[in-house]
Amino acid sequence: RTLRIGLIPGDGIGREVIPAGRRVLEALPSSLNLKFSFVDLDAGFDTFKQTGVALPEKTVETLKKECDGALFGAVSSPTTATKGYSSPIVALRKRLDLYANVRPVKSVRTAKSPVDLVIVRENTEDLYVKEEKTYEGPNGKVAEAIKRISEKASFRIAAMAGEIALRRQRVRDSGVDSIHSKPLVTITHKSNVLSQTDGLFRETARRALAQSQYQSVGVEEQIVDSMVYKLFRQPSAYDVIVAPNLYGDILSDGAAALVGSLGLVPSANVGDGFAIGEPCHGSAPDIQGQGIANPIATLRSVGLMLEFLGEEQAAAKIYAVVDGNLEDGKLLSPDMGGSAKTDEVVEDILRRL
Amino acid sequence: RTLRIGLIPGDGIGREVIPAGRRVLEALPSSLNLKFSFVDLDAGFDTFKQTGVALPEKTVETLKKECDGALFGAVSSPTTATKGYSSPIVALRKRLDLYANVRPVKSVRTAKSPVDLVIVRENTEDLYVKEEKTYEGPNGKVAEAIKRISEKASFRIAAMAGEIALRRQRVRDSGVDSIHSKPLVTITHKSNVLSQTDGLFRETARRALAQSQYQSVGVEEQIVDSMVYKLFRQPSAYDVIVAPNLYGDILSDGAAALVGSLGLVPSANVGDGFAIGEPCHGSAPDIQGQGIANPIATLRSVGLMLEFLGEEQAAAKIYAVVDGNLEDGKLLSPDMGGSAKTDEVVEDILRRL
Ligand SMILES: CC(C)[C@H](C(=O)O)[C@@H](O)C(=O)O
Ligand SMILES: CC(C)[C@H](C(=O)O)[C@@H](O)C(=O)O
Repeated sequence: RTLRIGLIPGDGIGREVIPAGRRVLEALPSSLNLKFSFVDLDAGFDTFKQTGVALPEKTVETLKKECDGALFGAVSSPTTATKGYSSPIVALRKRLDLYANVRPVKSVRTAKSPVDLVIVRENTEDLYVKEEKTYEGPNGKVAEAIKRISEKASFRIAAMAGEIALRRQRVRDSGVDSIHSKPLVTITHKSNVLSQTDGLFRETARRALAQSQYQSVGVEEQIVDSMVYKLFRQPSAYDVIVAPNLYGDILSDGAAALVGSLGLVPSANVGDGFAIGEPCHGSAPDIQGQGIANPIATLRSVGLMLEFLGEEQAAAKIYAVVDGNLEDGKLLSPDMGGSAKTDEVVEDILRRL
Repeated sequence: RTLRIGLIPGDGIGREVIPAGRRVLEALPSSLNLKFSFVDLDAGFDTFKQTGVALPEKTVETLKKECDGALFGAVSSPTTATKGYSSPIVALRKRLDLYANVRPVKSVRTAKSPVDLVIVRENTEDLYVKEEKTYEGPNGKVAEAIKRISEKASFRIAAMAGEIALRRQRVRDSGVDSIHSKPLVTITHKSNVLSQTDGLFRETARRALAQSQYQSVGVEEQIVDSMVYKLFRQPSAYDVIVAPNLYGDILSDGAAALVGSLGLVPSANVGDGFAIGEPCHGSAPDIQGQGIANPIATLRSVGLMLEFLGEEQAAAKIYAVVDGNLEDGKLLSPDMGGSAKTDEVVEDILRRL
């Protein structure tokens, strides 16, 4: 099987980590019978500054017509209000109907407070519909945004969470050692304030997870604020977390803090038959150009992308060699307390393949 | 001066901690020249179940007409959608125009990773306007909520954050030892997605803090997701955090996790000339009725209420005796790893007055 992969480095350290993603794909053992071809694509704030468009139509069209999957680096946000600029990754998620953002967060085996969870974030609606307006009120300007929650999107994201919970259990049943023994999905909401929108999310998620195929999956729910609290006090209580877009965004940065660095945390934007791997870290202007960005979030995102394209074996291989590097602990990037350069970390990982 | 204080225990452990708040007020040294009278008021889910109304008009009227301040315990949320029920504390904040929710989070002096910050949360708008609607779309139900941000509310909350930053600096200048040496306000937003609403919050907060009286206050800003991350990795970076309602809600639970227990974290709902002290923890049905709730969040909320009613000396006294109990560490409630009952903690604290 040959897979065509779009490479969208974006801004900042996105340009330093996406090449690492390409390298690991090219180095996969031939026994996996996978070949890759690549196409370089533009998007980001630099693209916006050059062309007036943050997400060129050509990028969207090439992904739709030619590609099986893609890797997205990061985008810089303008530091002041910039007319006409709009986040290309948010747009891409909507344009390709990548309705799930999947963010696994896992500590190394030796961690004192072990974490092994995945956040399944709805990726197309909530406040991210970006329907905003501003008007002059009696006491100055007033701005409003719409938070939209639909039954359809809530149902499919909860079903995806159910599937992921079952898949994780299958991996555990196959002998992979874990802190969890049973599949569990925790539904995040704030229906004590937002009874209609978050109420709809909560009820629909419960209904999706009540389907017979998820019979073995435990279902709990938690209000988002107390969830952030508990995430820090007792992270091992979570297996799969399903959340509306914005809570998922916030929770996944919180979960990343638990494992020591955003530089370790991958994500995949997943739709039906398409996946974009995306490291959770941003463009990191403070370290850009120094060659010291941690490539692990990207390498794991490559694994996730492959997993959602049905290549579970190749994904498992990548996860294993990345874990090997971390557990060995000799070649770590600065965010992990080490002093290795991006390339040195990548080469150590490729050697383990 | 005699202050009349409304006591609204609400549900669950609210009934166990609010009496502790009353006791500390009654026990304040007479040298402070403060007297208190009390009035018991109803609100909460139990009140709703009995009367069909979660916030009786009488409670609102008594607070408005008779009281100088109040203490609010906690409310239970219904576990399923309940027609006609609406959170009484959210309503109270709006009815009394208590536009700021102030939540200081401070670790004990001996903490390994010291925290000394205060979250100043806008308390009247954002998604808490609770303007929601549900309609039938082509693929099932769709619900929408309005997130409203006004220039007026953003300006006054940022100005309040500036005042609090200056006040904290005055306390430090008076010799109280702290991890901070300069006043700093960090503005929280997500204007990379919500350019109009959060953009208005961000710009207006910057404008409020650019006023000459806040010249000595440093101003930074941060996107809410990366703020949650940094809050956990480097909490000492924050002095005063100003945030729209929902982010403030989430951040303050996150900050509470840093100091070990929600049972330690107080809040005050503050308007012009009125303040309601409110522990940040909820009604905690799991421990209700056992007499083991941590009273410290409430006692500190009493201090905060007094501070905003202009009684800084009385407030400082309460903070000091609470810190005494914690630093001594002999009589701690179960959430802190101790085995003391609520009353034993209260008595230890009163002895130190
Ligand atoms: C860059 C930003 C628009 C984006 C988001 O909020 O989704 C980022 O925080 C993420 O989590 O991928
Ligand atoms: C109970 C709930 C409505 C409330 C809120 O969201 O404000 C609580 O979480 C709080 O922080 O006081």
